[in-house]
Amino acid sequence: MCQLLGLNSNLPTDICFSFTGFRARGGRTDKHADGWGIAFFEGRGVRIFNDPLPSCTSRLAEMVAAHPFRATNIVAHIRKATVGAVRLENTHPFSRELWGRHWVFAHNGTLPDFAPQLDGRFRPVGTTDSERAFCWLMQGLHQHFGDSAPDTARLFAWLRGAAIELTRHGVINFLLSDGDVLLAHSSTRLSHVLRRAPFAQVHLVDADLGIDLGRSLDPAARSVVLATVPLTRNEPWVAMPAGSLWCFRGGEVLATAPTLAGRIPEVVDDCA
Amino acid sequence: MCQLLGLNSNLPTDICFSFTGFRARGGRTDKHADGWGIAFFEGRGVRIFNDPLPSCTSRLAEMVAAHPFRATNIVAHIRKATVGAVRLENTHPFSRELWGRHWVFAHNGTLPDFAPQLDGRFRPVGTTDSERAFCWLMQGLHQHFGDSAPDTARLFAWLRGAAIELTRHGVINFLLSDGDVLLAHSSTRLSHVLRRAPFAQVHLVDADLGIDLGRSLDPAARSVVLATVPLTRNEPWVAMPAGSLWCFRGGEVLATAPTLAGRIPEVVDDCA
Repeated sequence: MCQLLGLNSNLPTDICFSFTGFRARGGRTDKHADGWGIAFFEGRGVRIFNDPLPSCTSRLAEMVAAHPFRATNIVAHIRKATVGAVRLENTHPFSRELWGRHWVFAHNGTLPDFAPQLDGRFRPVGTTDSERAFCWLMQGLHQHFGDSAPDTARLFAWLRGAAIELTRHGVINFLLSDGDVLLAHSSTRLSHVLRRAPFAQVHLVDADLGIDLGRSLDPAARSVVLATVPLTRNEPWVAMPAGSLWCFRGGEVLATAPTLAGRIPEVVDDCA
Repeated sequence: MCQLLGLNSNLPTDICFSFTGFRARGGRTDKHADGWGIAFFEGRGVRIFNDPLPSCTSRLAEMVAAHPFRATNIVAHIRKATVGAVRLENTHPFSRELWGRHWVFAHNGTLPDFAPQLDGRFRPVGTTDSERAFCWLMQGLHQHFGDSAPDTARLFAWLRGAAIELTRHGVINFLLSDGDVLLAHSSTRLSHVLRRAPFAQVHLVDADLGIDLGRSLDPAARSVVLATVPLTRNEPWVAMPAGSLWCFRGGEVLATAPTLAGRIPEVVDDCA
């Protein structure tokens, strides 16, 4: 199993504070020591840092924690290997281009019997079940929508069906972003917290470190931080129900809908 | 215009010394200050660092120059923007997945009138002529070879035809790698140097820095370093003829062939 960290914001925002707590779980305060990765979107561009070393000792992770890369969408992952060796090509997030946008994907959970037919358009480079699921998602998006990107509502509706299908094969908490929206699926465990002014003084669970968010964030910033397990002690983290898909844009919840197989699909809030 | 730096080696080798000289050209000793990027292959995995800031002042470039990422194939680029704004998505190297491998591409030159028909399988994310040419190359590889990767000889022969076609549209010095081979096209200017034991003491052109390669390289290492303009003073750099395609694997020249439009195509040495 692994852990996820995500950020979606209306203004480019750094994640140094949250990442400092998160990376401690990669071998220091928790066991997810089989590599890590983080993707920062700057407009249409994306930077991805990844490393098969434990995030708690990786020099690259130390640099990322110290460097304020500002982004409106961030997807990060620390790995506890289940399927696929500890190698660079098996670290998340994975990325592919579709419709002239970069898409990044990170997964927590396992899909032990998921062996879909892939048509070759998106093919795994490594050997994880996660990259296979990502390629299947990208293939499905292309097969369903063809060469033109859908609007967010249609994207969300399709992805919800795909998440229901994936849930039949195992545990599939995931974060997916094209730099515009951040899509998050809680299969078993995922939480989020909304941050907007007036900002609180917060303290990490995994390190003896506190911060006055009011000093580091723009008063106009609205952001949502997602994590497998809440990162701070004194913030109103919301546990996202098992079996729910969420769509965030500009630091707001745009849509959420259930994805548990067997439940009657019902759109709680539609995407714009 | 821009500058290229590449490495191909039989053993994972770091490029800290060469990159130190190269990054100085991104705003200090030369004018290529509109961003930079570098891709390191570790087996099938790849790490790409890129930044729209000048490489001579970029903190990320400083970290890359100081950190010995070891790789058998490296592709780096410093940018002087001609087509496309100074933005993250317009920095080289670009990457796409084909046949379950990551491919990375960096370009020096301009292709002012190159507006190929793209079928949508590989679509530019940014606005450079370079990424457009890369997508056209990837599309052509897929259209020609289908869903199965060709052997290196067939890959090289096809790429040579593509380089001849691209040369009709402008200047296209490029480096292309899938982590197995490094393919290099000299359209107007590209040099390489072969390094094997006994290693020399070398000195950078762009910085007051020398190194005894015998102390830093494994005696069994065989590598080739490529650069738009030679990086060291006292090594036997070879100017690659204008209009020549090269294929390197394991630090050796595997093949080279002319690509000047109008010249009678003649394979000088075939790929294995």
